[in-house]
Amino acid sequence: MSLPWRRAVVSVDQFKKPDIDEIFSLADRLSVGRTMPLTGKSIINLFYEPSTRTSSSFHAAMTRLGGSVIPINEVNYSSVTKGETLEDTIRTLESFTDALVLRHYDEDATERAVSVSSVPIINAGNGAGEHPTQALLDLYTISKERDGLNGLNVTLMGDLKHGRTVHSLTKLLRMYDVKINLVSPLELSLPRSYLHKNDTEHRELGEVIADTDILYVTRVQKERFSDELEIDFSYSVTRSDMNLAKKNLVLMHPLPRVGEIPIELDSDPRSAYFRQVKYGLHVRMALLVALIGRD
Amino acid sequence: MSLPWRRAVVSVDQFKKPDIDEIFSLADRLSVGRTMPLTGKSIINLFYEPSTRTSSSFHAAMTRLGGSVIPINEVNYSSVTKGETLEDTIRTLESFTDALVLRHYDEDATERAVSVSSVPIINAGNGAGEHPTQALLDLYTISKERDGLNGLNVTLMGDLKHGRTVHSLTKLLRMYDVKINLVSPLELSLPRSYLHKNDTEHRELGEVIADTDILYVTRVQKERFSDELEIDFSYSVTRSDMNLAKKNLVLMHPLPRVGEIPIELDSDPRSAYFRQVKYGLHVRMALLVALIGRD
Amino acid sequence: MSLPWRRAVVSVDQFKKPDIDEIFSLADRLSVGRTMPLTGKSIINLFYEPSTRTSSSFHAAMTRLGGSVIPINEVNYSSVTKGETLEDTIRTLESFTDALVLRHYDEDATERAVSVSSVPIINAGNGAGEHPTQALLDLYTISKERDGLNGLNVTLMGDLKHGRTVHSLTKLLRMYDVKINLVSPLELSLPRSYLHKNDTEHRELGEVIADTDILYVTRVQKERFSDELEIDFSYSVTRSDMNLAKKNLVLMHPLPRVGEIPIELDSDPRSAYFRQVKYGLHVRMALLVALIGRD
Repeated sequence: MSLPWRRAVVSVDQFKKPDIDEIFSLADRLSVGRTMPLTGKSIINLFYEPSTRTSSSFHAAMTRLGGSVIPINEVNYSSVTKGETLEDTIRTLESFTDALVLRHYDEDATERAVSVSSVPIINAGNGAGEHPTQALLDLYTISKERDGLNGLNVTLMGDLKHGRTVHSLTKLLRMYDVKINLVSPLELSLPRSYLHKNDTEHRELGEVIADTDILYVTRVQKERFSDELEIDFSYSVTRSDMNLAKKNLVLMHPLPRVGEIPIELDSDPRSAYFRQVKYGLHVRMALLVALIGRD
Repeated sequence: MSLPWRRAVVSVDQFKKPDIDEIFSLADRLSVGRTMPLTGKSIINLFYEPSTRTSSSFHAAMTRLGGSVIPINEVNYSSVTKGETLEDTIRTLESFTDALVLRHYDEDATERAVSVSSVPIINAGNGAGEHPTQALLDLYTISKERDGLNGLNVTLMGDLKHGRTVHSLTKLLRMYDVKINLVSPLELSLPRSYLHKNDTEHRELGEVIADTDILYVTRVQKERFSDELEIDFSYSVTRSDMNLAKKNLVLMHPLPRVGEIPIELDSDPRSAYFRQVKYGLHVRMALLVALIGRD
Repeated sequence: MSLPWRRAVVSVDQFKKPDIDEIFSLADRLSVGRTMPLTGKSIINLFYEPSTRTSSSFHAAMTRLGGSVIPINEVNYSSVTKGETLEDTIRTLESFTDALVLRHYDEDATERAVSVSSVPIINAGNGAGEHPTQALLDLYTISKERDGLNGLNVTLMGDLKHGRTVHSLTKLLRMYDVKINLVSPLELSLPRSYLHKNDTEHRELGEVIADTDILYVTRVQKERFSDELEIDFSYSVTRSDMNLAKKNLVLMHPLPRVGEIPIELDSDPRSAYFRQVKYGLHVRMALLVALIGRD
């Protein structure tokens, strides 16, 4: 993909190591002190699917930087129901804003939006496609919690088939010296296209927990299953697992969780999933400044 | 309750006379001139129940002070439907904001939110529980309209059983030298736990109107009745009542009204219910500054 | 109508030529450079009918000027369902804001709101009534695209019966030396009250396209038809039409379009409908500054 990420953040494929270094440095700087470099700027949060977490994160990122946000969450009740195409909506809204944060249930929505927009588009999730800012914040969390990205043993556990978060994160991790372990039932294995020859696949967390530096757990994406598919699968990280794990393990989850990590683990200092939310705010601040901060 | 109100505004029980004096003085100061002490700060309006009046009041209070607001009104369409607990939602959103204004249909929601939140929570109504900022603005209205809170004869009329507004207000009024008259049908009497030995109970406004300084009327809270309970009860303040009342009576209502006060009384200078809305804005500005104004 | 437009923007009938000159000059000035004359001011977008385009336009206009916006879009889920009248809602919300932008499905809503409000009201569409800011932005678009408003041949095409946009625009155009052509099926003709003796009515665009300077196309307002009325009517501007048209034709549409103008015409420089959106932003900025910019 030759589209520069400063023009539109569509996929993790757009980011090379120096880009990531730059974004993470910027996130570091913006996380301390409150400068307001985006005063007078605005973004539109255009969400065709609800996502309080992601829309609030961008909203907070923008207002902390001094900018303002036009939230459009009720898309199904708006012009779209009058038969307007996504392209026309984008070409209308671009007049009102410096950037568009787009969440859409169709995988091709981002591409269609980018093809007509004169302002930067940020993909905040396109159906079964990508959610690149989530992947970047996951990577940033790892780098902050472990002070670097190389030499780590990373275990990804859960629904590795449908989780776009996991797909995007694996792509980013490939740029670093990282060993990846995959833990899932057979039916929810990582698609072959994302698999790398050094990866190992497992059915039980116990097989890898002792060596793991980063344990990344995801939710079963029931809403992305086809109706016929019924998988009887539940898993969760237990206190026993944590007892076997390293003292400096980092336990991550993109949230919301629905039982994969019990509440009793929240007080374990290795549980990083709420710190992950905060890191996400800083990464999104960095992206916004990088995309619309210069005049 | 030992929780300091600067940490979380949960109940009127947290406020002593000096606290109230301080908040009201601050409200006085903030109501004149437009300073923006909360520039760069933000709140989240997290409303599980819709309430345009209350959410708009906080929104306006925050923006007048220079801050910004992340409105989350469509909670039922968001992460919550993915099965997330209130506690996880709070722990996520606290990363994005300096305070959370929470409206919830469950009475225990505020307590649960406070138990996990690292930022101040403001209870904007928790089911049949409390609505402390409404009670504070009611008290502030009385103090502004009568230039003080002692020596007053206060009549509370309407659904005194279900109206949380009335319950909270009576608690606050007990701190001052105030005579309270209660006017309601038997089925909607003030619960015994809120009753004080000097209070008098009545079925007709006519019995007390001539002596009343403050007449506080509330709406029948039909949505809080159980289905079986059918009360054939309607009441309203009439022109005749007003003719019998004092020249400096203060007529209040938390709004919305549904017939308890006819429109023809709006032009009576003693009708204070729309001024009450404005006083509410100033009280909420004061609370926001008190909670998140210092660094 | 004797109501001054600086008090409330209700109808295009309030605007005389000098008013329009003033607003357009202000729009010109505000469109270049980013001054923030409305810092510390706020508006409420009170939308009883959804309209992403209009509400976003006002939202963007306000934030570009440094002000803030309280969006109330979910009116049907709010106090109104507790039985509150529009008048009470207005008298409540006026305490929170410097102006109210009102969209309502009832034609008499604007008048009722104005009758009780102490802050300026801007009519953003009142049922089958008016949408004056749309008409002003249409006129501004014409003046910008053609550098003036006199001596033009203007063709209005589409549903001229129900389109309030067209009704308001014709009123404004009457103030200038403009020839108006009307193209529509008989059932959707311009109501006689809007017709002027010099207007000509047509069934086919081909009869007037060659002489047209401004071609204004509107959508069939299906949602305003009564259920019984079934009109089998479709029309669209074609490439052939454009080939017959002047080199400096201006093709306009209030959007959303549903086939009246095919996408293939978007790249024609004479297609002005997306520039029209931008002009709308500038006109609304001008109106906001004119209404609430002075202290």
